[in-house]
Amino acid sequence: MTSVNAGSIAAKLATTGFGLENLPYSSFTPPAGQGTRLGVRIGDHVLDVRAAVERYKNTAADTVSADLAKAVEGPNLDALLAADRTVWDALRELLTRLLNDPDAAADLEPDVYPLAGVQLHMPFTIADYVDFYASEHHASNVGQIFRPEQAPLTPNWKHLPIGYHGRAGTIVPSGTDVIRPKGLRPEPGAPPSFGPSRRLDIEAELGFVLGSSAPAGEVALADAREHIFGVTLVNDWSARDIQAFEYVPLGPFLGKSFATSIGHWVVPIAALDAARVGPPERSHQLTSYLDDASTEPWGLNISMEVQLDGQTISHPPVALMYWTGAQMLTHMTANGAAQRPGDFFASGTVSGPEADQRGSFLELSWSGTTPLRMDNGKEVSFLEDGHEIVISATAPGPNGSVISLGEVAGKIVPAT
Amino acid sequence: MTSVNAGSIAAKLATTGFGLENLPYSSFTPPAGQGTRLGVRIGDHVLDVRAAVERYKNTAADTVSADLAKAVEGPNLDALLAADRTVWDALRELLTRLLNDPDAAADLEPDVYPLAGVQLHMPFTIADYVDFYASEHHASNVGQIFRPEQAPLTPNWKHLPIGYHGRAGTIVPSGTDVIRPKGLRPEPGAPPSFGPSRRLDIEAELGFVLGSSAPAGEVALADAREHIFGVTLVNDWSARDIQAFEYVPLGPFLGKSFATSIGHWVVPIAALDAARVGPPERSHQLTSYLDDASTEPWGLNISMEVQLDGQTISHPPVALMYWTGAQMLTHMTANGAAQRPGDFFASGTVSGPEADQRGSFLELSWSGTTPLRMDNGKEVSFLEDGHEIVISATAPGPNGSVISLGEVAGKIVPAT
Repeated sequence: MTSVNAGSIAAKLATTGFGLENLPYSSFTPPAGQGTRLGVRIGDHVLDVRAAVERYKNTAADTVSADLAKAVEGPNLDALLAADRTVWDALRELLTRLLNDPDAAADLEPDVYPLAGVQLHMPFTIADYVDFYASEHHASNVGQIFRPEQAPLTPNWKHLPIGYHGRAGTIVPSGTDVIRPKGLRPEPGAPPSFGPSRRLDIEAELGFVLGSSAPAGEVALADAREHIFGVTLVNDWSARDIQAFEYVPLGPFLGKSFATSIGHWVVPIAALDAARVGPPERSHQLTSYLDDASTEPWGLNISMEVQLDGQTISHPPVALMYWTGAQMLTHMTANGAAQRPGDFFASGTVSGPEADQRGSFLELSWSGTTPLRMDNGKEVSFLEDGHEIVISATAPGPNGSVISLGEVAGKIVPAT
Repeated sequence: MTSVNAGSIAAKLATTGFGLENLPYSSFTPPAGQGTRLGVRIGDHVLDVRAAVERYKNTAADTVSADLAKAVEGPNLDALLAADRTVWDALRELLTRLLNDPDAAADLEPDVYPLAGVQLHMPFTIADYVDFYASEHHASNVGQIFRPEQAPLTPNWKHLPIGYHGRAGTIVPSGTDVIRPKGLRPEPGAPPSFGPSRRLDIEAELGFVLGSSAPAGEVALADAREHIFGVTLVNDWSARDIQAFEYVPLGPFLGKSFATSIGHWVVPIAALDAARVGPPERSHQLTSYLDDASTEPWGLNISMEVQLDGQTISHPPVALMYWTGAQMLTHMTANGAAQRPGDFFASGTVSGPEADQRGSFLELSWSGTTPLRMDNGKEVSFLEDGHEIVISATAPGPNGSVISLGEVAGKIVPAT
């Protein structure tokens, strides 16, 4: 993964997954203790976006718009998210043009830092956080496990993308340790006991980052592209025992709120044009605001990989999700609820129909009844202290290229 | 309610409910288009807090701490919430001393504005918003109405304060019109239909405003006072039909997220010392972190009043809530979830055992089966377009005084 020629932007961009077709954003601090700023990833390096824009403004005959200059000034994506799609597209076009031009790219060298030497941060400030439940295979598996006496899917499931609000203040960037949460755990034939979760789990999800200066009312399916800035990976850590005791009737709370990890890199939705696919066939007639039969396809052919302590345990397929990001967004606003730049929603666990496509240990071990057997011979049903989870993903880019979504990593440390 | 002598602070403070014992805070803009600032209410006037503190700093021999000066600089409560209880107490002590001293009070006259001429705003910026379900009478009523075939309370109810995250971005200040939300409504024997809610409701609640610069880990019951800055009134508008269709299994979402109204005034928790009462008898042994048998009492003897178009329809009694604010806070953090200044949680609907003590139309009309008969002869089961709801509340203050929590008002306007 090290670039062949540290001095050449072109060589850096040749790194698989983070070439010119991708250009994901994050927030970073360079090694010398200078201020935190917006960065764009090129290979295993990061380019200071503001410095690049200013350098261009000072040398080029045409000018950079004031809106664009302002949008890259801050320490992260916040100002860019508060702008609108014309600014998002103008910045991407400018960066692409500069990086594609050998002379312009050479001028940018002083603003490029090896990733190994910088500190990465949360890429943007989360406003509200919503988590959906958009995979039919996941919802069906969970239904069979949690409510075996009932139909796998609740009666509402095929009519709307079920979602709920999560805790924005405990969303942490990839690499943050996760402390095993404590809570009230159900005990058979006895009152619940308080203690560390015994069924700590992951949820491999895709997250959607919202922006736009547009009015904050209802968003039609056809306008989703004006509001969805990009995507990042999500691990929605879940304490299944705490969740199981608390969740009726108002939904998950402490079983989820202790931590949610997201990737450092936000991949612009524009980088995923070649990954667009149609969603699965609709088995129910959808109400008009959710009916995507005649809109651009919003399914995304993203392949996830889940690793436990370096061993791959699952390949969740985003393309098979029943509900798309555009549907989740339009649903979230159908009641008139206002949106803010920095609002963030996740897809819910991505699971496919096969046993090795499940995005949670609850499903992979079928609630502990069929533990995973690891290469070292150990059986694993749920997360143990010291376990490290890395979720990564790729999608097809234009002309046979690969778009990497990077990774979201986290290690479990013992309860306090 | 007009002060007898517009020139006298003492006369302003004689107004029932907003005397020296109360001193609630808000954010306001004076009439002349000057900047927005932190205010404290005295009678039907508001005092510019920063101006008062600066005036005192310039004239008094003793000094105001840098922390206190910084905490009152901003346009609202945000900086004060980010400080800690020593600063909260020091500010309250300073304001009380100044307002109690005729000479000092006279000096403040230029910084006092009649409420009628100022614009009030959200008193603070909401970080995360959590809504609880802490009234046994409410939960039991809702259980009987929504799940008649089951026990009124779910098995977990007496073991923990059930709560869930709500949408922070759609919390609006008192007086904001509420647009009737649209959504998928259940239809008997047919697929759901999309349209304006037919069962729009209120929930009369008490909200708790959190602050503190203390570490953000688990908060013990005994430390609740270090984190709970104050309280305000909440109307958690609810579309019962949308909620009923969507809420299984992940809880309320669009049935709630369109709008939540809060009062303009945050009453410091210190103003409610005389309103403290013991909570109801505990029918279940509580797990240690929730066990309040030997802590200071956190029940609050606050009497609410709900008016529909000026006619009183209910008197919800906060004192009868099963779970206290301190328990809700400690529960919310028991899993290690970090808190931020500006986090906000509400009690859930306050209902008492009597029919005229219910805090929602769902309960008042028993799901529409026993409509309210208004003085004008009309029957009301749920909110109609044009209906205006005003929730107000008072509590006993020291020495026979009354602490008013002000009001939270909102009018229903037709769906777009």
